[in-house]
Amino acid sequence: MDFKEKLKTYQELINERLLNYVRKEKCPEEILNHSMEYSLMAGGKRLRPILVLATYQLFREDIEICIPFAVAIEMVHNFSLIHDDLPGIDNDDFRHGKPTNHKKFNEATAILAGDGLLNNAYMVISNSIANATGKDLEKQIKVFKEFSEAVDRMIAGEFVDTEFEGKKISEAYLEYIHKNKTGALLKLCVRMGAILADAPQEDLNRLTAYAEKIGLAFQIKDDILSEEGNEQILGKPVGNDKILEKCTYVSKYGLSGAKEILEKITKEAIEELNIYDKKAEFLIELAKYIKERNK
Amino acid sequence: MDFKEKLKTYQELINERLLNYVRKEKCPEEILNHSMEYSLMAGGKRLRPILVLATYQLFREDIEICIPFAVAIEMVHNFSLIHDDLPGIDNDDFRHGKPTNHKKFNEATAILAGDGLLNNAYMVISNSIANATGKDLEKQIKVFKEFSEAVDRMIAGEFVDTEFEGKKISEAYLEYIHKNKTGALLKLCVRMGAILADAPQEDLNRLTAYAEKIGLAFQIKDDILSEEGNEQILGKPVGNDKILEKCTYVSKYGLSGAKEILEKITKEAIEELNIYDKKAEFLIELAKYIKERNK
Repeated sequence: MDFKEKLKTYQELINERLLNYVRKEKCPEEILNHSMEYSLMAGGKRLRPILVLATYQLFREDIEICIPFAVAIEMVHNFSLIHDDLPGIDNDDFRHGKPTNHKKFNEATAILAGDGLLNNAYMVISNSIANATGKDLEKQIKVFKEFSEAVDRMIAGEFVDTEFEGKKISEAYLEYIHKNKTGALLKLCVRMGAILADAPQEDLNRLTAYAEKIGLAFQIKDDILSEEGNEQILGKPVGNDKILEKCTYVSKYGLSGAKEILEKITKEAIEELNIYDKKAEFLIELAKYIKERNK
Repeated sequence: MDFKEKLKTYQELINERLLNYVRKEKCPEEILNHSMEYSLMAGGKRLRPILVLATYQLFREDIEICIPFAVAIEMVHNFSLIHDDLPGIDNDDFRHGKPTNHKKFNEATAILAGDGLLNNAYMVISNSIANATGKDLEKQIKVFKEFSEAVDRMIAGEFVDTEFEGKKISEAYLEYIHKNKTGALLKLCVRMGAILADAPQEDLNRLTAYAEKIGLAFQIKDDILSEEGNEQILGKPVGNDKILEKCTYVSKYGLSGAKEILEKITKEAIEELNIYDKKAEFLIELAKYIKERNK
């Protein structure tokens, strides 16, 4: 199976399984559930759950133990998008070419749908843990702890990003934002896959280094797309970072500077996987995909 | 020790322990942490953590195992207050006589501080679970599952409450709101205390019935205070429910009707505890306190 096919297979699997885990208890009129499902199914790339599954499959085949965590991380990702898009934060009207949650529904619904998705992630995890035993239970508890800590870092990264909009910031702060806002969750995904697959410590270290590098690459590419991407393909306006005077790799190093760093960091990420040879083909292609994507 | 003294002792214990559990990792300028701590320490009654501890102490003395869960539930409660107060939901300027989080800081900070507190609660729980073994671990996992489900119901209750503002609603919907928005968390607190104390199933059932009744009483009293409370003592404006045409026990049954139900339900709650005799004195007084409080 080539990369594109494999990517699609993973995406379809995630899409198929996701809705099984959304809160079932219908509150009157079901709008809250619809609103959560709307954002969840709005056409994301499923990069985070795919990272969990693909990393796991470096070591083991049967991904069933990963599914709840893959679903939970996609819920957290969507919670963060809904809240970031709110009028009180980025005030974005479109996401994946569709109206953002507060535009489709209303602000109160979007706030609570975001809250609901974050909490739903933990419902999924608690349910998985409650049904686990022995070594599986141990691994899942370790993952739960890393999960909550990574989400904490994501929220802090988003906070600093928002707080420093329109202000000149130091390189250290820019790094903080990138490491936390996007990087923490991507690193978590890879680590979850490895931990759930019982990967030895040295593999875990190596894969963590890979994850940190693709996390940074992802954010740099985001900054580049936000500067010179195609609005039609991207499904959201281009140039907003400039208008909001956001601190990005592009504002800091210029377009060509950012692209150079992106090339270098992607190459380094791939080198971390050399030892796995053919087995790591998908994760290698994924690193290239992150660099080359146009949305 | 009389009720007031015991209540104060509990409150001081919670206040003392709470800050130990707030995220330690300082993001640049620490405003996010300050914002979370501001709401957490703004003067709440600590009713929820106290319910956990007092229920636990019906059966056992050493409350150490309860502390992380008592702290986590207070974090969740404060997350929900911060988000409910947002301009996009209730748009309240004051809480406990102090500016609400978005008034003190700004809207973006309040959204993310709320998110941060909800997630912080799960960080605390994951850390406690990661350090537990044997029977303690089993109980904590059970509590974690109930915790995430109760928070889900709280969010759904708040959603329906918001969604039906200014609309005529059926008795069934009013009950749904009250059972979920406030009741779910209060019930959880009592159940957490009982489960962590290894209470037998029949005690768990009895205490659950008590919790459901004080949960309803709490909401009815809230509705009454919102109609005829003292703004100075309450620390927030009175009469807003009427202006927003909120569906409450007062709008549904009138002031005297609501008061009658409050008396009846409090008496029933107390009857559930008869079997515990002197041991339940604090929980009995707490039910009366919920009925008689003026803030």
